[in-house]
Amino acid sequence: MELWYTEQHTDNVRFSIKVDKPLYTGQSEFQRIDVFNSKEFGNFFTLDGLMMVTQKDEFIYHDMIVHVPMATNPKIKNVLVIGAGDGGTVRELTRYATIEHIDMVEIDKMVVDVCREYLPQTACKLDDPRVHLYFEDGLKFVRTKENTYDLIIVDSTDPFGPGEGLFTKEFYGNCYKALKEDGILVNQHESPYYDEYAKSMQRAHKRIKEFFPICRVYQAHIPTYPSGHWLFGFASKKYDPLTDIDEKAWNSLGLKTKYYNTDIHKGSFALPNYVKELLAEAGE
Amino acid sequence: MELWYTEQHTDNVRFSIKVDKPLYTGQSEFQRIDVFNSKEFGNFFTLDGLMMVTQKDEFIYHDMIVHVPMATNPKIKNVLVIGAGDGGTVRELTRYATIEHIDMVEIDKMVVDVCREYLPQTACKLDDPRVHLYFEDGLKFVRTKENTYDLIIVDSTDPFGPGEGLFTKEFYGNCYKALKEDGILVNQHESPYYDEYAKSMQRAHKRIKEFFPICRVYQAHIPTYPSGHWLFGFASKKYDPLTDIDEKAWNSLGLKTKYYNTDIHKGSFALPNYVKELLAEAGE
Repeated sequence: MELWYTEQHTDNVRFSIKVDKPLYTGQSEFQRIDVFNSKEFGNFFTLDGLMMVTQKDEFIYHDMIVHVPMATNPKIKNVLVIGAGDGGTVRELTRYATIEHIDMVEIDKMVVDVCREYLPQTACKLDDPRVHLYFEDGLKFVRTKENTYDLIIVDSTDPFGPGEGLFTKEFYGNCYKALKEDGILVNQHESPYYDEYAKSMQRAHKRIKEFFPICRVYQAHIPTYPSGHWLFGFASKKYDPLTDIDEKAWNSLGLKTKYYNTDIHKGSFALPNYVKELLAEAGE
Repeated sequence: MELWYTEQHTDNVRFSIKVDKPLYTGQSEFQRIDVFNSKEFGNFFTLDGLMMVTQKDEFIYHDMIVHVPMATNPKIKNVLVIGAGDGGTVRELTRYATIEHIDMVEIDKMVVDVCREYLPQTACKLDDPRVHLYFEDGLKFVRTKENTYDLIIVDSTDPFGPGEGLFTKEFYGNCYKALKEDGILVNQHESPYYDEYAKSMQRAHKRIKEFFPICRVYQAHIPTYPSGHWLFGFASKKYDPLTDIDEKAWNSLGLKTKYYNTDIHKGSFALPNYVKELLAEAGE
């Protein structure tokens, strides 16, 4: 017998992974959660059948969502993380001794419970004393905050289902308000390659631009996400990730990373012309 | 009925494309050739069942294999292209009025014939008067050349089957000899992500390094190749693509490109740490 996990990236494209063993299947109040073990990717977990995290390559996503803002402003102390139930984003943040406080708001407690059991590689720092876990809707949580955070990371699912509210104008406006005057907002920004994802990317970019004076997009190679060409949004009230990056400060920390380095930080903001055109269209 | 083309990227990973219509199937002296039509990618063609070119994204590969060396040395006049039967590499080269002579050596005439019929988007400049077509083994062709070319582009299949010889030490040594004293060699360099491809990449890098003083690797997002994270090798006797790139000269040409720009040129050489480590291992 062979068991294959298949994700439909578009109506016309499928990506399949040979599964050695299904480890967990559950249905939370919000979504279906599955964990599988595979030879190629180790353990991986999916929400409503969509790939979230694999042991093999989670380092790419987590390096790029955390170290890009942290190298841009090494003085970040107070962080809000929305989503990120697998724990990988918090794991990377806790490596900075300079960070004093991390609020993590995940709507679905079952995701955290399942990842603690099956993905200890990512869910390993959730008990750090600086981490405060809230099992709530991030959209509501951020409404109550003002001038509080140096950095907000939106590590969400796609813009449908439980993650939908995290791509709205109201949400981005509230993030702006919740950030201090030199605050940074980073979010996962979908892919430019297939039309349906590119439309989500354009919509998010357009909405974020309405609030933040600095608004850039950067990219990474994430082979287990649709097209493997994945984007992140970097929005900020003050810092430009290209000119304000403090390479010396970041390199002097001596953090060992498998993907991120300060050259790739700068290189990741150099986008293909077709992506630049999609963003320009959205910004008009 | 549904028809799906499936490529086995590794023993444990599959990538599948919904096919609207199979357009051509043939067996040449060297390999099996198929062309399919699909909604997502337009026409695409495969050799021995492996994806070579799709209408949707061939611009990425061809932009990156041609414009990176051309922007590094705008004085390139005499070019040798090995493989590249689909014609896309030659199409991009012929956009430079400064190029005087292009030898294209493709082992399999049937690939060119099929692409002329089913992929006119790429095979559209093979009749340019500067282009000289040879249906021969590139490995043998290059043996006979000395101090002849400003640029050699190896646009080959994977390092098994008909393309195998184009990854050997003998071949790279002959390329060195065939290049002028400021010559550049660019080749498709596989992917760093899955072990079997990464091993080919390391082997190629190690062999090229034995001949060329300047030896770099750059990357692009090519979603239809395994992992979508694809590498190119840039080897040279004199020019460093990072410091010698003539941005002003290239931009003044006014070439419209969908992927390449001079920022992405520089950014594409910024590699993830895990790729740098694989290359360092190979270079030892």
